[in-house]
Amino acid sequence: MRTPDDKLAARRREQILAAAYRCFVRTGFHSTGMKAICTEAGLSPGAVYRYFPGKSDIISALVASEQKHVDRALEKLASAKDPAKALVRFAGQLAKDACKEPENILATEIFAEACRDQQIAAILRASEQALVEALHRWIVSAVQAKTLALHIKPLDMAQLVVSLGYGVSSYHLLDQRFGASKAAELVQQAVKAQIQHG
Amino acid sequence: MRTPDDKLAARRREQILAAAYRCFVRTGFHSTGMKAICTEAGLSPGAVYRYFPGKSDIISALVASEQKHVDRALEKLASAKDPAKALVRFAGQLAKDACKEPENILATEIFAEACRDQQIAAILRASEQALVEALHRWIVSAVQAKTLALHIKPLDMAQLVVSLGYGVSSYHLLDQRFGASKAAELVQQAVKAQIQHG
Repeated sequence: MRTPDDKLAARRREQILAAAYRCFVRTGFHSTGMKAICTEAGLSPGAVYRYFPGKSDIISALVASEQKHVDRALEKLASAKDPAKALVRFAGQLAKDACKEPENILATEIFAEACRDQQIAAILRASEQALVEALHRWIVSAVQAKTLALHIKPLDMAQLVVSLGYGVSSYHLLDQRFGASKAAELVQQAVKAQIQHG
Repeated sequence: MRTPDDKLAARRREQILAAAYRCFVRTGFHSTGMKAICTEAGLSPGAVYRYFPGKSDIISALVASEQKHVDRALEKLASAKDPAKALVRFAGQLAKDACKEPENILATEIFAEACRDQQIAAILRASEQALVEALHRWIVSAVQAKTLALHIKPLDMAQLVVSLGYGVSSYHLLDQRFGASKAAELVQQAVKAQIQHG
């Protein structure tokens, strides 16, 4: 059972994460100090450091909360009646989510930081690997059950879906006319083309 | 005719760009000041400011020099005998180049900066647009000449090729085992699947 203390801790964590999020989007990840996050959250440094000793701990938590989102989509995939349709839908949703603002701006920031910070690179890498591996496993089982047939290898398909998500997100970042719906459509066309029909 | 002064100016510009490049990759674009670039180039601030009044002018020049690279690839495309093969090759090369280090790290840095700096966003957007438009025009003319037939619209194809380049670059950034060759192979599979054969 959650005690009132647990509830307060969960609320504090949420409060700090939301504040950090706003700071990162506004001034960039690298330029945001823990002090700015404390000010934005309206909390003392002691209160913030108690939950997050450093910026990379905050990033870990932000990536983990994004991961939960993806996990739910993966669960839906697992229970799908028509794997081909479900895979196309999953890829489209991933692309749409990747184009969402300001999440896509923050993701770009974290990617840039990962180039220079090994700890942050490890967090992102683990998150990417978890998604690719889950997707790969699901594709393999659908192929083995003969409910899905592909023109490419299951691992290639998993990597293609994830790469396409990254790709349209970057494209959309520069060309806002492109849009999340167009991004999803393009990704779905690319995924459909790798599925054997009939 | 180029005078000795022109030659010196070109050499100085190159010297400054190379120094800026090293600084950006090492400490990130946002954290690099003009002072650090002067020190790295071994030039006085006056000498650097004469050629580049600000960091965004340096970024412009770096993006323009990258653009030259892409322009050469587009010229090769224009003179290709077999448009289908040439398009697949072009997309593969774009993907390979997008995975090159440290260019991919710098590109990620500039992308992140573009989220907060309108001037830099405009430079990147113009470069992306130039590539997509050139590719689009070439695809349209090949389709009209009936030397290329696609399953998707010419503009979608151009956007897909560019998005795939961005996508595998991000993927590779996190998963070095993926590699530039695998990136090119994956992109080529995705492009081939959109080409009508036979």
